[in-house]
Amino acid sequence: MQMNPNKDTQLCMSLSGRPGNFGLRFHNHLYEQLDLNFYYKAFASQDLTGAVAGIRALRIRGCGVSMPFKDACIALVDELDASAAAIQSINTIVNTDYIAVAQLLEKHQVPKDSTFALRGSGGMAKAVASALRDGGYENGLIVARNERAGQALAQSLGYEWQAELGSRRPRMLVNVTPIGMTGGPEADQLAFEADVIEKAETVFDVVAIPSETPLIVRARAEGKRVITGLEVIAIQALEQFVLYTGVRPTDEQFQKAVAFARS
Amino acid sequence: MQMNPNKDTQLCMSLSGRPGNFGLRFHNHLYEQLDLNFYYKAFASQDLTGAVAGIRALRIRGCGVSMPFKDACIALVDELDASAAAIQSINTIVNTDYIAVAQLLEKHQVPKDSTFALRGSGGMAKAVASALRDGGYENGLIVARNERAGQALAQSLGYEWQAELGSRRPRMLVNVTPIGMTGGPEADQLAFEADVIEKAETVFDVVAIPSETPLIVRARAEGKRVITGLEVIAIQALEQFVLYTGVRPTDEQFQKAVAFARS
Repeated sequence: MQMNPNKDTQLCMSLSGRPGNFGLRFHNHLYEQLDLNFYYKAFASQDLTGAVAGIRALRIRGCGVSMPFKDACIALVDELDASAAAIQSINTIVNTDYIAVAQLLEKHQVPKDSTFALRGSGGMAKAVASALRDGGYENGLIVARNERAGQALAQSLGYEWQAELGSRRPRMLVNVTPIGMTGGPEADQLAFEADVIEKAETVFDVVAIPSETPLIVRARAEGKRVITGLEVIAIQALEQFVLYTGVRPTDEQFQKAVAFARS
Repeated sequence: MQMNPNKDTQLCMSLSGRPGNFGLRFHNHLYEQLDLNFYYKAFASQDLTGAVAGIRALRIRGCGVSMPFKDACIALVDELDASAAAIQSINTIVNTDYIAVAQLLEKHQVPKDSTFALRGSGGMAKAVASALRDGGYENGLIVARNERAGQALAQSLGYEWQAELGSRRPRMLVNVTPIGMTGGPEADQLAFEADVIEKAETVFDVVAIPSETPLIVRARAEGKRVITGLEVIAIQALEQFVLYTGVRPTDEQFQKAVAFARS
């Protein structure tokens, strides 16, 4: 946050059922470091429609959307395109998950011809799967117990769907479910079975709390290429920051903001 | 503002067509001094309905309402009562103008049997006139060129109405119009004529920018009892602060916050 707010201070915000501290600490830290007249607030809400009306009426500069609203927001732009550019068109609500995933696939040099299995079928799964498709990963399997959502997602992107992984052993494993997340009923479980992990090259888990999920811990122990949820939330916070303020921090400023936000 | 915001930070706000800096500086200064986990933001909006939907959905702790929304908000509670208690019932929107005026009439020991003329017929005029009536000032005249609004206000409170003051020479003069306000078309005008001021004992002007209006300057020069718009906005900001946070600052903390907010 900027240390001396005035009537011109711009508000950016996040909207979720149960806010965390990462985003607001990341953004407010950089506002202060870069002397930008912004303030970032994490809002809890159960009412997406009312919140969006308020965001528009109050001219809030930017809004990040987390669970359980990702689905509803992405549904709003389904007719357009799942890319961040399209999602931007919902006025101030910008979804940068897609951008973050696309960047991380590049950065970690995951081979384009990798087969992959993506577990999940919610709004975040759609953003991740869209980034995979647009990144040239053509040989994909959506694994989701929810047949309707899983099939819809798979069909919209030209991927296969299965309720369970079965005998497949893909080269990349992507978890976009809450398995391994603190506080959830499956906090201590592996999103993919041990022998599936063993046969993979790359393991990508979007769970950020903790970023060292059982899946990631096991994949690291076996020397796999690993992409964590912390990388996703850090990059998506950075891209939000750039979209909202028009300022791109240096890599050093970015790294310091991540360290501050986690502390 | 509190210096280390987190997910539990509460947002309070003001809503107006053209926000100023007083309220946000006053509140954020006291949040910091008293180490309260709050942040205060001044919002500009043209859309009261959307803003109120957002205030509810985002669970904003408190909202002060300024021009041009006072009328619309007070209209919403017309069936109830014009007092602050009733206005509080619009969820988080609290109007403390009434409280401020009532306190100032007490503090300045304006005799209850004073005749008065109140110029104006908008939402703020209604709050001020209600405080006068509830304070026991029974002999009042509403002066308003808008006949319909003026008569409605006068009738609702048992006062007289006239389009102009005419030959009346009341003991107390109350200005609740923009006459004397910076930036308005009547910035350099007196809300009451010179000989009317001369015959009065008390002059009360709710205009706060500047608080030294032509009316107040002249009344001071003639040694009248004077109540200014600065006193109104300071007390109403204080009472908002108490309502929103549950904490009452000491008089010294209050005075320092006023000085900070004006600087």
